[in-house]
Amino acid sequence: MVLDRLQQLTRQVSATAPPPYPLDPLSTVEIDAVVSIVRKEHGSLNYNAVTLYEPRKVQMMAWVADPENAPRPARAADIVAIAPGGKIYDGVVDLDQKKITKWEHTPNVQPLITMEDLQEVEHVVRKDAKVVEQCGVLGIPKEDMHKVYCDPWTIGYDERFGTGVRLQQALMYYRPHPDDSQYTYPLDFCPIYNAETKQIIHIDVPTVRRPVSKAPPNNYHPATIEKEGGYRTDLKPIHITQPEGVSFEVKGRTIEWQNWSIHVGFNYREGIVLNNITFNDKGNVRPIFWRLSLAEMVVPYGNPEHPHQRKHAFDLGEYGGGYMTNSLTLGCDCKGAIHYMDAAFVNRAGASTIIKNAICIHEEDAGILFKHTDFRDDSTVVTRGRKLIISQIFTAANYEYCVYWIFHQDGTVQLEIKLTGILNTYAMNPGEDTKGWGTEVYPGVNAHNHQHLFCLRVDPNIDGPNNTVFQVDAVQGPGEVGSAENKYGNAFYAKKTKFSTPLEAMSDYDGSTSRTWDMANTNKLNPHSKKPVSYKLVSRDVPPLLPKAGGIVWKRAGFARHAVHVTKYDDDQVHPAGRHVPQTSGEPSEGLPAWIEAAGPNCSIDNTDIVLWHTFGLTHFPAPEDYPVMPAEPMTLLLRPRNFFDRNPVLDVPPSFARTPTQVAASAGACACKKSDGSSVLV
Amino acid sequence: MVLDRLQQLTRQVSATAPPPYPLDPLSTVEIDAVVSIVRKEHGSLNYNAVTLYEPRKVQMMAWVADPENAPRPARAADIVAIAPGGKIYDGVVDLDQKKITKWEHTPNVQPLITMEDLQEVEHVVRKDAKVVEQCGVLGIPKEDMHKVYCDPWTIGYDERFGTGVRLQQALMYYRPHPDDSQYTYPLDFCPIYNAETKQIIHIDVPTVRRPVSKAPPNNYHPATIEKEGGYRTDLKPIHITQPEGVSFEVKGRTIEWQNWSIHVGFNYREGIVLNNITFNDKGNVRPIFWRLSLAEMVVPYGNPEHPHQRKHAFDLGEYGGGYMTNSLTLGCDCKGAIHYMDAAFVNRAGASTIIKNAICIHEEDAGILFKHTDFRDDSTVVTRGRKLIISQIFTAANYEYCVYWIFHQDGTVQLEIKLTGILNTYAMNPGEDTKGWGTEVYPGVNAHNHQHLFCLRVDPNIDGPNNTVFQVDAVQGPGEVGSAENKYGNAFYAKKTKFSTPLEAMSDYDGSTSRTWDMANTNKLNPHSKKPVSYKLVSRDVPPLLPKAGGIVWKRAGFARHAVHVTKYDDDQVHPAGRHVPQTSGEPSEGLPAWIEAAGPNCSIDNTDIVLWHTFGLTHFPAPEDYPVMPAEPMTLLLRPRNFFDRNPVLDVPPSFARTPTQVAASAGACACKKSDGSSVLV
Repeated sequence: MVLDRLQQLTRQVSATAPPPYPLDPLSTVEIDAVVSIVRKEHGSLNYNAVTLYEPRKVQMMAWVADPENAPRPARAADIVAIAPGGKIYDGVVDLDQKKITKWEHTPNVQPLITMEDLQEVEHVVRKDAKVVEQCGVLGIPKEDMHKVYCDPWTIGYDERFGTGVRLQQALMYYRPHPDDSQYTYPLDFCPIYNAETKQIIHIDVPTVRRPVSKAPPNNYHPATIEKEGGYRTDLKPIHITQPEGVSFEVKGRTIEWQNWSIHVGFNYREGIVLNNITFNDKGNVRPIFWRLSLAEMVVPYGNPEHPHQRKHAFDLGEYGGGYMTNSLTLGCDCKGAIHYMDAAFVNRAGASTIIKNAICIHEEDAGILFKHTDFRDDSTVVTRGRKLIISQIFTAANYEYCVYWIFHQDGTVQLEIKLTGILNTYAMNPGEDTKGWGTEVYPGVNAHNHQHLFCLRVDPNIDGPNNTVFQVDAVQGPGEVGSAENKYGNAFYAKKTKFSTPLEAMSDYDGSTSRTWDMANTNKLNPHSKKPVSYKLVSRDVPPLLPKAGGIVWKRAGFARHAVHVTKYDDDQVHPAGRHVPQTSGEPSEGLPAWIEAAGPNCSIDNTDIVLWHTFGLTHFPAPEDYPVMPAEPMTLLLRPRNFFDRNPVLDVPPSFARTPTQVAASAGACACKKSDGSSVLV
Repeated sequence: MVLDRLQQLTRQVSATAPPPYPLDPLSTVEIDAVVSIVRKEHGSLNYNAVTLYEPRKVQMMAWVADPENAPRPARAADIVAIAPGGKIYDGVVDLDQKKITKWEHTPNVQPLITMEDLQEVEHVVRKDAKVVEQCGVLGIPKEDMHKVYCDPWTIGYDERFGTGVRLQQALMYYRPHPDDSQYTYPLDFCPIYNAETKQIIHIDVPTVRRPVSKAPPNNYHPATIEKEGGYRTDLKPIHITQPEGVSFEVKGRTIEWQNWSIHVGFNYREGIVLNNITFNDKGNVRPIFWRLSLAEMVVPYGNPEHPHQRKHAFDLGEYGGGYMTNSLTLGCDCKGAIHYMDAAFVNRAGASTIIKNAICIHEEDAGILFKHTDFRDDSTVVTRGRKLIISQIFTAANYEYCVYWIFHQDGTVQLEIKLTGILNTYAMNPGEDTKGWGTEVYPGVNAHNHQHLFCLRVDPNIDGPNNTVFQVDAVQGPGEVGSAENKYGNAFYAKKTKFSTPLEAMSDYDGSTSRTWDMANTNKLNPHSKKPVSYKLVSRDVPPLLPKAGGIVWKRAGFARHAVHVTKYDDDQVHPAGRHVPQTSGEPSEGLPAWIEAAGPNCSIDNTDIVLWHTFGLTHFPAPEDYPVMPAEPMTLLLRPRNFFDRNPVLDVPPSFARTPTQVAASAGACACKKSDGSSVLV
């Protein structure tokens, strides 16, 4: 009967649609098929993840190069499942062959915490006698336990409990009314939850107790705002319309726009994954990036008092940037003419689920693309730019991360992240000293210092997979002032340092040299500059990891020790803090440090297939204006073509206004104004 | 008869309009009146500048505080004039009293080069026999001299010629056709022009000669693009409309928008000047900045070979960011519902002139302002933001600078600058080694390394004029890993260093601590955080001045030696490289270094009226994609409220979507979607 269902599903796959692009996420039908195959052999399991097992790169590249003749990569699924008793299995199912090709018990790991895992903790916490007792200590009567809430985080790592048992720490809050923000009423103790037994196994109780705050609620929902005087009424509408439709074309999940071609993948961990990014350079389709994604992040908090050291969330590796993604709404999250894509996942029981409108794709006006006026005669060209934005928003308990992958016409790729949502808060007594580890943002509310450190995984493909990374520093030229070689002292240049090995490539940001990193193809020189074609990583929000070397965060978040790491490409190296992140001890460090150690820190990364890992982000010292909900704080980085094009690649974007010297002289071109959108309406 | 004209003009002032706000730029009528007054006493002069002599701050603040009773500051003009023989005069005319209150001959200075000064050089150059001869050496026949062009720069400083004689250096180019870009055909020699005698007094000729390039033109005007295959046709229009009008109100030159009030000034040097910036915090109008402007900039080039050391343009001090400003065009430079302001200047002969649409003021959608979703029940609030942009574009010979002062609803002020236009180019022979000082961006075209360093002048008024600056570094906490105080090594905090003196305040950027600077009012603490109310300068594009200490650029551009300087407020200290910048030797350094020396580097800047000077920008190593015209390169900085508001100040911006937990439970608020623009259209 299981087989019948499988055959039926398989037929459905082939009957309803053209074959998916090999990098497309698994469809609901495929997910259901995978679970049927697994269930047949392994019975009842809790599914943690069923996601695309991405084609091996060599095979995929061969197929991309010659889709007619090269074998089409098989559809396959990467599976994480938890068997009764808490045994973790990692598996692969080949969907073409309809069989399990890998099924391994992986001891002493904990896969990420799903939304279903999160949801159940609060209910257990409320009923636990010791939790009820602790609430009583803080002034919450037993009959108010329905007003007690928790944000369940994975325990992270706690040496008292190790890795073997699947644990969550419950950050506790109180809501006087269901619509009040619980973050205004943090509770000072922290229960530990065993996900297997569904029990509270321990409570961390501080020595200094902090009764629940008596401050009035601090809310931001409409009823509150109306009570406080209502919404402002002086904002006039701005309408953004594209009556002729959008300028991009979506074929399957491949977007073509302004010479760019981008395949939009998505998975439960990284969220948006951009594949096989190429640029049509005057008819020549040139590869630029094989794969781009946010591969990991860590949010260490800076309060050294126990148990706050456990607050260092790996939001992608521990919860999943895909699983936590919002279903987006037109006119609210995105404005204009929008193309949405859904995201399909498995649930714990093994059924496929869908988040509608998980990805938003739209265009925006990008202001002036280029302009020049000749001061002699006012001859002018001014051209407006456009950008394409592929975005998602995910909610990690209190915080919201808005992720915008922005493509510019000039070949620049920009990653912008906006942080919003709510500060993680902890209780404080009136007059209590924060000791500088946090800020009292509202009476009784201590918002701890923290960092948001993201790891961008760049798999460059700059005119081919064999690339080399250079560190570029803006430095003074040799020769003292007055010397023959530098008489006036004004010499400066770009000092380029080739990274030949992963050890050399472990590099930090240096603001004093405006450090950037070039991903170059040294086999191909720009015909004018004679420099290798390259893409430059320009990133300025690059704080170092502030937790100290040898400490818990440093050990677990090895990727964050440097702004840049470079490794030789390996199909299985996608998650820089490890495949299963919760409850890693960091002894030894998983992910990047382990891979570099295994491959040999002195192996060659020169002119070969490489991956660049870039950690960036910001350090946040909270302030009252961040509360009760944070105005979005942006940060951004650029991947810019340098010596890649022979010439400015946007000269053929229609100008808004153009008038040459001879037209000025003949008064011919006066106000021959053409809109950047191609329409020729005079202004 | 002069008097009659003056009386007539004065009557005109009073008859046609309410009195100008004391910080309004001089009107054309006022400029004409000033010139009449000066002419009466001093006869025929060449006018270099007639601009608002800004009211003294104490007087202006008294009037702002109590406009009914305090005396209204007089209208006055600040004048720079050149008398026959090249004598420079600095003067002040009181327009209320209709008299000259200051008239001084200032020896050994050169005021800036106006557009009229620039325009005349090319004509002289073309007729100069020695220039013709040099052109001949490079292969340009005598009869083609009309195809020879120059960008005349002030000589900057050349020790062979000193300061006494007003000189320009002519950067030479050739145009095969009038519509060709001359920057593709740089010539290798540099004539020196005497502005007084209107003669070429010297030519700098390199030892290695570089015949004019034979490469085909590299153009970007429509005829060229059409010939190369035409414009792309796949861009669909984006329309941005405000059918109900804009959300800001303009009263005179004061803009009120979303709790902000901003007076928009403008002058020939700094361009846009923003005055008396306040924020209405729930009915309490709180001062934030007294005055904001770009006060200076320097663009040092990095080629040490003579005479390229002279290429270090102070675009504001040597040419004027106001004088060079573009007249903007709707739909081209700015898109949407625009409010423009004109700019009035004096010309050399003393007549008033106008640049229409010099300033663009408009609103833009700003994406998500804040959002939070509760993972328990999907209760959500999402609110879209809006920004107000006050902008200008100025053309400094080859380059375009687009300056955007952006006000956000949450109290943030952002300064964004986009660089576009054309690289400054120099000739190179085929196969010539650039030695790393430049890049061959096209055959025969060497674009030299350079920096764009801007000086932002911030006169803070954070809840009053007495403010203090702190340097803020994100640093690790004390205690090694394993110690009682920092067992897990995760402690970190914001280290604040008070600047008590200008000497202490000379500070550089430190990327390794994500350094920021707080402008604080230590007399007023935030009620929640108990920290001083403050605005934080968050700036990440902060390269150091690369020319060496003791060299020509370092001496002349003293302001650029540090990322931040702080001085005690002085009415006469506006121009950090000095009042008259061309041909300063830097011995001693004018502007900031001189002021700090004069006031005493150890004087107190603690809790007093201060000015913060911030140098930021970027280092540009050109690449072929920057040519023949550069895709706009953005850089940005933020002034953010920290501990200034008691609470997020944008909670009353109407949400796009809001649904509380009780509404979710009651299924009541399902999709009660409200647009951020206030309209209530369901989505």
